Amino acid sequence: MTTTPSRTPIVNLILLEPHEAAAARAVLSDARGEHLLRVLRVTPGQQVRIGVVDGPRGTAVVRAIHDDAVELACELEPQVPRRPAVDLLLALPRPKVLRRLWAQLAAIGVGRIMLTNAARVERDYFDTHVLTPQSYRPLLIEGLQQARDTRLPVVTIHRRFRVLVEDELDTLCPDVVRLVGDPAASSSIDHAVHAATTRVLLAVGPEGGWNAFELALLERHGFQPISIGVRSLRTDTACIALLALTHAALERRLQTHS
Amino acid sequence: MTTTPSRTPIVNLILLEPHEAAAARAVLSDARGEHLLRVLRVTPGQQVRIGVVDGPRGTAVVRAIHDDAVELACELEPQVPRRPAVDLLLALPRPKVLRRLWAQLAAIGVGRIMLTNAARVERDYFDTHVLTPQSYRPLLIEGLQQARDTRLPVVTIHRRFRVLVEDELDTLCPDVVRLVGDPAASSSIDHAVHAATTRVLLAVGPEGGWNAFELALLERHGFQPISIGVRSLRTDTACIALLALTHAALERRLQTHS
Repeated sequence: MTTTPSRTPIVNLILLEPHEAAAARAVLSDARGEHLLRVLRVTPGQQVRIGVVDGPRGTAVVRAIHDDAVELACELEPQVPRRPAVDLLLALPRPKVLRRLWAQLAAIGVGRIMLTNAARVERDYFDTHVLTPQSYRPLLIEGLQQARDTRLPVVTIHRRFRVLVEDELDTLCPDVVRLVGDPAASSSIDHAVHAATTRVLLAVGPEGGWNAFELALLERHGFQPISIGVRSLRTDTACIALLALTHAALERRLQTHS
Repeated sequence: MTTTPSRTPIVNLILLEPHEAAAARAVLSDARGEHLLRVLRVTPGQQVRIGVVDGPRGTAVVRAIHDDAVELACELEPQVPRRPAVDLLLALPRPKVLRRLWAQLAAIGVGRIMLTNAARVERDYFDTHVLTPQSYRPLLIEGLQQARDTRLPVVTIHRRFRVLVEDELDTLCPDVVRLVGDPAASSSIDHAVHAATTRVLLAVGPEGGWNAFELALLERHGFQPISIGVRSLRTDTACIALLALTHAALERRLQTHS
């Protein structure tokens, strides 16, 4: 086996698990401790930015350093950051693409990620270990630490597209404007996001697109087809582009109506 | 050596080299011929979408199939697509990240890609084979074939950031609105793109950002700092997000002023 130098993710805030933050002192001896020691080269007394998974942000003071462990005294802000205002319904991408997407999705900001089957999704994509929380949670955390967020996207996996859209979506994502990326559409995200919009649910199809049945089902359930131009993009590129444009449209709406 | 099943890129148009299109009949026996035979399963008489690198789009009729080669009779449109209206000045990313970016950049649309040195770029990134045209050109072509474009981004490599910004940029990219992504900025892309804007040059820093000297140099040379929100993103995510937002801003400007 050859080893390649592994990438050092950017850490703009160190996330603690709720039980760690509940203790008076948090002792980090894993990759986070290593990051503090090797990258930030902290010394006792130094402050670092922290956050609690699905909890508040805060600051911590390095109290002591023991071999490979760093002891932190944490002070947390009173408020928990809002969940990102965009949810994603994504036809399950190839495992390699999905593995790359997790951190990017968490960084750009999604409240919920629903991975679904579709006619053009290969069945064996569902058997991959990329779909286990042990595999994706650290990648989501990596994205949050980069983006300085604490709100972990809620991930659910849906093997039956029709059941998801017809029976489950209203409960999973209430009160959202529903959009589906469709290169054939003529409407833009800006047109679809109106004054009363607080959350958006974005449906992104598989490589090759939703088929006619799926698109019709989505539209019957309130998904407005929107396009980001004539250029056809790969799923991962489309996801990032659509999320960026949706966040920007929500931001503009807030500025216009506040 | 283990082999992993390679991804089949989406081909929405098959790009020919100018010398191939100049012949009365183009015979494709490489990956494009294979795509026609194995994925599209073409038969004689069938039409396929084609384009010429940096030339027009068109259609071709399959004239004959010989073993692994497909013979096409091409008919080209009179007009060449416009070069995408956004250029990119990008601090050289890690080789692995750059290898993934080429096709995505060509698909989302860039006229020119200038890769530059910066204080936070590792020196050995410049020694990589990812920077040779043999390596990146097929990936750019892959992105164009996905996006149905023909205009190959012009790639240049600049080891001296200051020389690029002070002496070369005016010639390489005349008449552009210059923007630099800066998480600390308060202005949005929409504010920077005004009625008279026809092209935008977007500067995207290295992982960890431009340093203060670089940012000051860019601003002195007309780059307006713009932000896409408080979330810090990885270079590759930021690139895609910024390009999508810039194209959308230019599109909105056209709709408002036409």
